[in-house]
Amino acid sequence: MTAKAHYVRPLDLKQGRVDMSHGAGGRAMQQLIGELFVRHLGNEALAQGNDGAVLTGLTIGRDEVAVPSAARDAAQRHPFGERLVMATDSHVVSPLFFPGGDIGALAVHGTVNDVAMMGARPLSLSAAFIIEEGFPLADLERIVLSMARAAQEAGVAIVTGDTKVVERGKGDGVFITTTGIGLLPVGRDVGGARARPGDVILLSGSIGDHGMAIMSARAHLAFDAPIVSDTAPLSGLTEALFASGGEIHVLRDPTRGGLAATLNEIAAQSGVGLLLDEQAIPVKPEVAAACELLGLEPLHVANEGKLVCICAAPDANRLLAAMQAHPLGREAARIGEVIADEHRFVQMQTAFGGRRIVDWLAGDQLPRIC
Amino acid sequence: MTAKAHYVRPLDLKQGRVDMSHGAGGRAMQQLIGELFVRHLGNEALAQGNDGAVLTGLTIGRDEVAVPSAARDAAQRHPFGERLVMATDSHVVSPLFFPGGDIGALAVHGTVNDVAMMGARPLSLSAAFIIEEGFPLADLERIVLSMARAAQEAGVAIVTGDTKVVERGKGDGVFITTTGIGLLPVGRDVGGARARPGDVILLSGSIGDHGMAIMSARAHLAFDAPIVSDTAPLSGLTEALFASGGEIHVLRDPTRGGLAATLNEIAAQSGVGLLLDEQAIPVKPEVAAACELLGLEPLHVANEGKLVCICAAPDANRLLAAMQAHPLGREAARIGEVIADEHRFVQMQTAFGGRRIVDWLAGDQLPRIC
Repeated sequence: MTAKAHYVRPLDLKQGRVDMSHGAGGRAMQQLIGELFVRHLGNEALAQGNDGAVLTGLTIGRDEVAVPSAARDAAQRHPFGERLVMATDSHVVSPLFFPGGDIGALAVHGTVNDVAMMGARPLSLSAAFIIEEGFPLADLERIVLSMARAAQEAGVAIVTGDTKVVERGKGDGVFITTTGIGLLPVGRDVGGARARPGDVILLSGSIGDHGMAIMSARAHLAFDAPIVSDTAPLSGLTEALFASGGEIHVLRDPTRGGLAATLNEIAAQSGVGLLLDEQAIPVKPEVAAACELLGLEPLHVANEGKLVCICAAPDANRLLAAMQAHPLGREAARIGEVIADEHRFVQMQTAFGGRRIVDWLAGDQLPRIC
Repeated sequence: MTAKAHYVRPLDLKQGRVDMSHGAGGRAMQQLIGELFVRHLGNEALAQGNDGAVLTGLTIGRDEVAVPSAARDAAQRHPFGERLVMATDSHVVSPLFFPGGDIGALAVHGTVNDVAMMGARPLSLSAAFIIEEGFPLADLERIVLSMARAAQEAGVAIVTGDTKVVERGKGDGVFITTTGIGLLPVGRDVGGARARPGDVILLSGSIGDHGMAIMSARAHLAFDAPIVSDTAPLSGLTEALFASGGEIHVLRDPTRGGLAATLNEIAAQSGVGLLLDEQAIPVKPEVAAACELLGLEPLHVANEGKLVCICAAPDANRLLAAMQAHPLGREAARIGEVIADEHRFVQMQTAFGGRRIVDWLAGDQLPRIC
């Protein structure tokens, strides 16, 4: 494949309209964020383009050490100096209930994972509901119960919320926006801009499960081996990675736009190229089959319980072992490396020995996946 | 009027459906929150029923003092011990643009004010957009610019966000969910449960402006004196109140459901009665006229730039003077007092010397006001 220019026409802010691609996690969404949101709301945190923001100007102490006796030396206050992280996600997944989860679990996991991908420990969530008039209370209760279970599993509390109702035909069942805050321990420094040539790319498991579970439910496809969403809270896995002591540069969960979008984001943020080994990327046979049937590439399909970890090469084996020892990382694999490349391409070594460019998804073939 | 029983049938969680009243800020919404959200997501912060949550287990220090030299004594770290507050609101106002504001300004003010009503200083916001396919980019830019101005005016940064797009007919232009965090300084302790018999009720200005501006825009009503929304960030006003040194027990902004809903919430939370003086409650003549035309009571109409302050009686004059000295409190008034009442009624002394019960609004006469 020849290298494609990354040139995109600027947004037409006079005559243009929002289309489905602006919410698809690909290049159109990045453009909308850059040319509209970051441009006008601009601040350092927002411009960094990570899954959340590290708040500057504040540090945190746990209560038990926050009111130290005057005799205790400053140096002994260990947790002092933690930083606050904030992340938010609206969830508009359709259908609301799908194999392996529902919008409630997804709304908790999505934001817990965004906080975890900042290197932080999730602490509290808010939850805001926009409900369509006529929505069954029984479905709402099922969703809220699912949120409660997910929050408990992830060890976070849902501390505040909001409820709005819109007229029939002005919404779609229920939309849930969760916002999370978490604590970033001292010494952790991960971000999409920290990948360096020579780093190793790890992936915590098989790709495409969530997106294909949704697509199958939507298309009423039945397979011999049913496809189940991988939606899960990843903060336990990230804590296990940090506990291993390996040097982690980037953490990101490949949600909308799939692994392809996530890796292209990282390549752009870090100013590097990424070289993947196609054969090393785990894909479940039923997911591969469903993708083929629907004309999709697993690389572009959303995940909700997987993470990419880019790390210093000497620590790759240790981090991979830590992943594989965790229930959510048993199928973890080393899938490639970071290379110097001024074009910031994501390339893939194919099974046949060639190389191809892995691009963002154009348009939105998978709307409302989360 | 005779006292009405506050008995309400439990939600029908098997056959029931969400209707517009569940988002209206009245008793039906309180019931949904209590019987569904608080019941299943239950935790202390959520159950308190305030505009946001104070997070337990954490204290905050500012950066400049957070890494003290070992020589500096713990007692000198003044801001240490501040607490974190979190609040969230989805905004679904219709129309998106209205006299005096738009959904962007409202989304910033709404959450800034919820944080301020907890007694905290707003610090950072997240903003999550759910956009309907086909929405004009020019309108989106206008809204984002309005958010930027509102955030700057309120002294908060919008640090992280999210963008989702739903198909035409599955949303309504744009919905914006903002979540705010703020710092609660040491020694401030306000909440809906802290009103005590003998306390004085202050109101920062005229009621009904926001709701009637929206209703007028929606009904294409033209008045000689146009009605303009009061949407504004109230954190400057609350800081002025705290700076006065007066003992503040409750702060709340009477949004959805109007002053009537807010006062009934407080009466229920604190287990007290409230007695209002009808003649003391400021209502602009044009708002009163529009309310009469549409068959509404100003007491039930939403505000977005007003607050109720319930305070210790000896400090009422000092706090009223502090309000009136602030640009957003020039028309502030003393509107009533807290009384002992096991029925937790909100009553009003009418202009004719009688008393009537001020109840929650039944149903939703004013849908999608914020």
